[in-house]
Amino acid sequence: MITVLTGGTGGAKFVDGLRQIVPQQDLTVIVNTGDDLLWWGLHVCPDLDSITYVLADKLSEERGWGVERDTFFCLQNMRQMGEPAWFQIGDRDLALHVFRSKLLNEGKTLSEATAEITARLGIASRILPMSDSRVETRVLTPNGEMGFEEYFVRRQYKDPVTSVRFAGALNAAPASGVVDAIASSELVLLAPSNPVTSIGPILAVPGIRDVLRGSEATIAAISPIVGGAAVSGPAGTLLAAQGFEVSIAGVADYYKEFLDLLVVDLRDAHASDELREKQKTRGRGSRKVAPNIHCTPTIMRKKEDRTALARSVMEACRQCSETQNAAEGA
Amino acid sequence: MITVLTGGTGGAKFVDGLRQIVPQQDLTVIVNTGDDLLWWGLHVCPDLDSITYVLADKLSEERGWGVERDTFFCLQNMRQMGEPAWFQIGDRDLALHVFRSKLLNEGKTLSEATAEITARLGIASRILPMSDSRVETRVLTPNGEMGFEEYFVRRQYKDPVTSVRFAGALNAAPASGVVDAIASSELVLLAPSNPVTSIGPILAVPGIRDVLRGSEATIAAISPIVGGAAVSGPAGTLLAAQGFEVSIAGVADYYKEFLDLLVVDLRDAHASDELREKQKTRGRGSRKVAPNIHCTPTIMRKKEDRTALARSVMEACRQCSETQNAAEGA
Repeated sequence: MITVLTGGTGGAKFVDGLRQIVPQQDLTVIVNTGDDLLWWGLHVCPDLDSITYVLADKLSEERGWGVERDTFFCLQNMRQMGEPAWFQIGDRDLALHVFRSKLLNEGKTLSEATAEITARLGIASRILPMSDSRVETRVLTPNGEMGFEEYFVRRQYKDPVTSVRFAGALNAAPASGVVDAIASSELVLLAPSNPVTSIGPILAVPGIRDVLRGSEATIAAISPIVGGAAVSGPAGTLLAAQGFEVSIAGVADYYKEFLDLLVVDLRDAHASDELREKQKTRGRGSRKVAPNIHCTPTIMRKKEDRTALARSVMEACRQCSETQNAAEGA
Repeated sequence: MITVLTGGTGGAKFVDGLRQIVPQQDLTVIVNTGDDLLWWGLHVCPDLDSITYVLADKLSEERGWGVERDTFFCLQNMRQMGEPAWFQIGDRDLALHVFRSKLLNEGKTLSEATAEITARLGIASRILPMSDSRVETRVLTPNGEMGFEEYFVRRQYKDPVTSVRFAGALNAAPASGVVDAIASSELVLLAPSNPVTSIGPILAVPGIRDVLRGSEATIAAISPIVGGAAVSGPAGTLLAAQGFEVSIAGVADYYKEFLDLLVVDLRDAHASDELREKQKTRGRGSRKVAPNIHCTPTIMRKKEDRTALARSVMEACRQCSETQNAAEGA
């Protein structure tokens, strides 16, 4: 069993690679719901949607979100009626939001609704929202506090970020199946998603960080930071705002409590040598002395890049696990 | 001020004619909501929608319902997810249902939501749902009782009809503005809609029949029955099921409590002579001895037919009103 923690478009691409080389039924995907929003009165879960579309083979390659070959006629009419139109929902995409909203309004939990949707779409992997409670990623900027999609999509992440908080996290619980999935997996992968606003909200749900710390699984993260900057999106700005270095060292630091393996891009070969040196000489308060580092191409431009990255990560995890077992055996 | 009572596609065509010859702001349209349904969890009001699209100049001429040049991609995906797809909602059309559902879920009444929608679409006429309470047209057939759209669209009105009832009507009240609109109009027109399931539900809302009976307006109906059969749809079957003749006499009888003028098709010239004779010799319990009858082409195939019918009806009403005034003056 493999469990992936993910959110955002980088994560969706990685899961797309993974599903090509791993049997779908062996895969559990735990998804950030901190970006969820009530849009036109409908329950929209951007990260759950992307993962759902990837696993249903419907994700738009071109856009990286939404449904392939979608149209936007409903959106046009919404705009004509004076409703906000900055968050783009396609006509085919709408079906998912309308159906999810119906299930939630009938009293189903988000994980029940998600299970119903994946079953209807014939997805064999399990998709789990991180929590059935509302946990909302709130971004504080000099222009006010706002939800993540407003910061990210509407304002094109141009605002400087003062801080990020996960409203509701303290009272949230992991959705049914989340803790078990992590605890029973041999491999837990943190997708190359924004650590602060894609993986961060998942880790903020009480109980999830604990099960990761206590897990015997090999826990690997793919760095979304390459050459000292985010591959895409505001991960750099947000890491810095949270007091982390915008580098693979910052990513390692963010996940230090439980990370066994950090997968970094070839361009960070030198940085990874430095990181190894620094880790040797620095005492660390984490369960594991320091993560192994694996260098491989991580930029996923083409479809083949995704599979190649997934393969490379799986192989590195296997080696990492063997080394750990040997060390424990010794 | 002119008030039209309407429902269904015949009514929408007639209102389309009327809006070409009457200033939009002089027009109030009171619309049947007995066909409303919760579809995919959204509040869909088929008759309100048709009138809204007609007055916004968006109604599909081709289909007679929905938005012109619409696509059905959301519907396709709903079908793929195993949701019912027999009631066809287009992508452009969806905007209206999503927006209305949002307003209703926020606590607005149906008439408030309708006013908001018409304002957003720049419609100068007033569109009023017959009631803000749920009144549901239920059709009893040997195959069970069902909502009107299920009988009409899903089962293509093939079931024999035992009876029709308006669930919730006894506890319903006219929506705000309905009684005033009728009371203050010089002219009340009953569109060539199904008397039983389009106009019938409006008349079943307590208070509406009374204000019609007490009204000093000229009240005219355009017969949807031509040559002893419905122009389209199940009006014939339903009139018969309710114990009315499927003829212009049946229509006159259905509206006998308040009708001043019945507009019938040229093909019913002979039947209208018969009806006049019968009315002369038969005592009637209604406020008005018998309606005047006006013969004119009523079938609206082309756009021009609609305007021509509206013009003819307006002229007949003017004459009828003059005759009444003369009679009262005498």
